Amino acid sequence: MNQQIKLQRRPSGIPTKEDLVYQEAAAPKPEPGSVLVRNRYLSLDPYMRGRMTDTKSYVPPVAVGSVMEGECVGQVISGPGFKEGEWVKGMLGWQQFGSAPPSGLTRIDIGAAPASAYLGVLGMPGATAWIGCTEIAVVKPGETFVVAAASGAVGAVAGQLAKHMGARVVGIAGGAEKCAYVKKELGFDECIDHREKDLGDKLKAACPRGIDVYYENVGGKVQGAVFAQLNDFARVAFCGMVAEYNDKEPAPGPNLMSVVKKRLHLQGFIVSDHPAAFRSWPEIGARLIAEKKLKYREDIVKGLRNAPDAFAGLLQGKNFGKLVIEID
Amino acid sequence: MNQQIKLQRRPSGIPTKEDLVYQEAAAPKPEPGSVLVRNRYLSLDPYMRGRMTDTKSYVPPVAVGSVMEGECVGQVISGPGFKEGEWVKGMLGWQQFGSAPPSGLTRIDIGAAPASAYLGVLGMPGATAWIGCTEIAVVKPGETFVVAAASGAVGAVAGQLAKHMGARVVGIAGGAEKCAYVKKELGFDECIDHREKDLGDKLKAACPRGIDVYYENVGGKVQGAVFAQLNDFARVAFCGMVAEYNDKEPAPGPNLMSVVKKRLHLQGFIVSDHPAAFRSWPEIGARLIAEKKLKYREDIVKGLRNAPDAFAGLLQGKNFGKLVIEID
Repeated sequence: MNQQIKLQRRPSGIPTKEDLVYQEAAAPKPEPGSVLVRNRYLSLDPYMRGRMTDTKSYVPPVAVGSVMEGECVGQVISGPGFKEGEWVKGMLGWQQFGSAPPSGLTRIDIGAAPASAYLGVLGMPGATAWIGCTEIAVVKPGETFVVAAASGAVGAVAGQLAKHMGARVVGIAGGAEKCAYVKKELGFDECIDHREKDLGDKLKAACPRGIDVYYENVGGKVQGAVFAQLNDFARVAFCGMVAEYNDKEPAPGPNLMSVVKKRLHLQGFIVSDHPAAFRSWPEIGARLIAEKKLKYREDIVKGLRNAPDAFAGLLQGKNFGKLVIEID
Repeated sequence: MNQQIKLQRRPSGIPTKEDLVYQEAAAPKPEPGSVLVRNRYLSLDPYMRGRMTDTKSYVPPVAVGSVMEGECVGQVISGPGFKEGEWVKGMLGWQQFGSAPPSGLTRIDIGAAPASAYLGVLGMPGATAWIGCTEIAVVKPGETFVVAAASGAVGAVAGQLAKHMGARVVGIAGGAEKCAYVKKELGFDECIDHREKDLGDKLKAACPRGIDVYYENVGGKVQGAVFAQLNDFARVAFCGMVAEYNDKEPAPGPNLMSVVKKRLHLQGFIVSDHPAAFRSWPEIGARLIAEKKLKYREDIVKGLRNAPDAFAGLLQGKNFGKLVIEID
């Protein structure tokens, strides 16, 4: 038997269990040339919302009726080049058993960090933060760095890296509990609750010398508030806009006159365009964790059948830390 | 007697003759340490609209009651370090006689090009095009380059430079006459009239492989149409948004999700941040003109008292070529 979640229809707004349908299929058999893996953890990430929609993007959407795409860590059952029981990571889908060509799998060292960490802090979200902070929008010592979704998988790493790079770091998160975690545990200088009133005023107070670098991963009203406080020559790294992923029509963006007046530098990026980061980051990140210079938090939900609800919650900021499904 | 135009009040929308007031003051006397110049040509440029408004920008606005700031070419009357009659360029204001410290003046070679050319093709607008094309958003051979206000002082140079850099070059201009000039005289591959219907469709037809570099100097509806056709990894150099300079409230901009999806690179710049261009460009530009690789057109209006109307026309695209006032 193979537990699976299929994309049964394209969602409108927040995906529901009618869009993402749980089913049990026959257990898969090993196929020649391919490695069969028993998935143990599935990563749920905001980018997946884009995969459910049939609009032009950097990769084609998941076909209706197919198993949802997603990254998993798991243990090899059989296949060329791997031993039974080896831990690997790959795009194995929202399912209990997945298969991939040997080139599509990476071995992970569960002695250096727990298996689930390879989906978050040491995986794609961590590498996204690493590239954004070290290549796309590099913050200088003494500058002010702002990141939204600051307790999330990407934001938490980005802010901690910016702190190590000598910046004043201000996070934005949803709710008092997340803000307390961001300040006390992650060591940001300030964290603002975007659910409270007067976001602009609070941001101004937290950034008395304005904002030099903004790590953009939410869009929406936070984007507008941050843009108003950007300094001359500020840089913005765009890796996502999760607050807008469920909009049926794109909302207007900020007027771009400030791009001229302030000589702003806005750059979008996608971590898969930077494959070197997937090789360098897990080792660097694991070392920072061992040295207690990088903290992380996971929100582990048990049971694949709970993935659709957990994913809907992720798009609404209900998770607290990197959202991972533990597959029974 | 000294003819002058003063900023009498801050304009709302297009500046009028009540905002920009012509007057005749007493002829100025030479001051110690300062060079007195008889201005011959005054440059009128879109950026001046920003100087009339009291909002935060890269330089403070002109004070109400002061002579409008502007660049002129003229001949020295007297002053330290210069001979009488020498041709110079400097920020001498909208007036017949202006003065500046010696360090604020640059000698111009009217043997290499007419004096007025140092305000346009070889001056600030030409240098702006040079920096935008060679440093901010560099086009590669075989790529598609789009520039709006294509018959204007900046756009005409930017498009010709992009053509020399091996790109397919598409201009956008207002009216059939300007479009014909841009194609036939300046040698762009295509030019689209933004006053006609279906700008988006015409742009798509003119850019069958999409747009790789957009040189942004107008904003407004043209910006939206171009953004929809940008390719993955496209670059946008922002040097101005003249279509919006008279707006009382900033209009919303394009939704920025495409910055992520297409990994766009948007960069604002101001030529004064690149002082080296003011040294290198006049010589390079003069050589290109001599080799007939760079064409330019001037729209010379006689009489300083006509400057306010001419400036209002500039903001509405009524000029055809670089707008210059010939001072009587």
